[in-house]
Amino acid sequence: MSVLTEVLMANRDYAASFEKGDLPMPPGRRFAVLTCMDARLDPAKFAGLSEGDAHVIRNAGGRASDDAIRSLVISYKLLGTREWFVIHHTDCGMETFTNDIMADLLSSSLKTASVDETGWHDCCEGPGCTEGKYINWLTIKDQAQSVLEDVVRIKSHPLVPGDIPVYGFIYDVRSGSLIAVPEATEAGR
Amino acid sequence: MSVLTEVLMANRDYAASFEKGDLPMPPGRRFAVLTCMDARLDPAKFAGLSEGDAHVIRNAGGRASDDAIRSLVISYKLLGTREWFVIHHTDCGMETFTNDIMADLLSSSLKTASVDETGWHDCCEGPGCTEGKYINWLTIKDQAQSVLEDVVRIKSHPLVPGDIPVYGFIYDVRSGSLIAVPEATEAGR
Repeated sequence: MSVLTEVLMANRDYAASFEKGDLPMPPGRRFAVLTCMDARLDPAKFAGLSEGDAHVIRNAGGRASDDAIRSLVISYKLLGTREWFVIHHTDCGMETFTNDIMADLLSSSLKTASVDETGWHDCCEGPGCTEGKYINWLTIKDQAQSVLEDVVRIKSHPLVPGDIPVYGFIYDVRSGSLIAVPEATEAGR
Repeated sequence: MSVLTEVLMANRDYAASFEKGDLPMPPGRRFAVLTCMDARLDPAKFAGLSEGDAHVIRNAGGRASDDAIRSLVISYKLLGTREWFVIHHTDCGMETFTNDIMADLLSSSLKTASVDETGWHDCCEGPGCTEGKYINWLTIKDQAQSVLEDVVRIKSHPLVPGDIPVYGFIYDVRSGSLIAVPEATEAGR
């Protein structure tokens, strides 16, 4: 069965017993979570969320990108969240490369015109592609450090009110546990 | 009980019966979902995902921002996803304002030094704040149109390979159903 069919069949089952059609738009528990897109993470499960409880923002690494801050400001200003969690995780793909490596990989892979199974194949016209050099991939060297940096970046953004608490955690993909990053949560007060 | 305590207690329960500690980093079902941060959406539930299955990227609106594209390119190039879903939803907060309204609201609210319950209070030093004018809030006028635009933006990005299918859907928060946006999925082939 194709992925598309599988997703649509799963959705049919979900909708068939759906009883949450009357939830309001603002998150009921008034908080937001910023975390990684990693497939092993299910924030609703690991943080105990039901539909309607909290905003969940996810990107590669769970980083405090400009776009994550756009989302957080909307979450606060228009939809009333008053506490935020920044949650990175162990064994993150963002630790496996650097900005330079990513740019080089993309640049060299894109020089070939052939499509191969590795995914490193041509997607640009012409001889090579330097697009990868213009993106900050927001790689991670150390999880506790990246959580701290992201909490500090969020707290110091001019559109983020000073009184919102931002908590820093690392999710352990081996145990399912949230590990506190006290220096980040301290900086997020 | 505070939100922080509630989340940590829920996590303790999750970790106590955690049996997914051996999952590999690449998503097992080799696809990624881009959707909105909205609290009412639980992508794992509405699309039938278990831990380890698929990348989930979420921001305000589920928009194909530069950061979402950063995440999708990493998802494909480093972690092997080969199909992507763009899923916006009915009753989205991003339909309730425009870029100009958001900039004006932030600008005027930030002029006051007082903290109030509405969330529209001072977070910058000095007389007013024009920071909101420098952010593209990626608001939405029409869901089917925004899904189409985002699929087209993803497909035309120089780092996105031409052969990856991108499917377009709208999630109905009243029924829990995924509604196809055929013109987007057609553009995403």
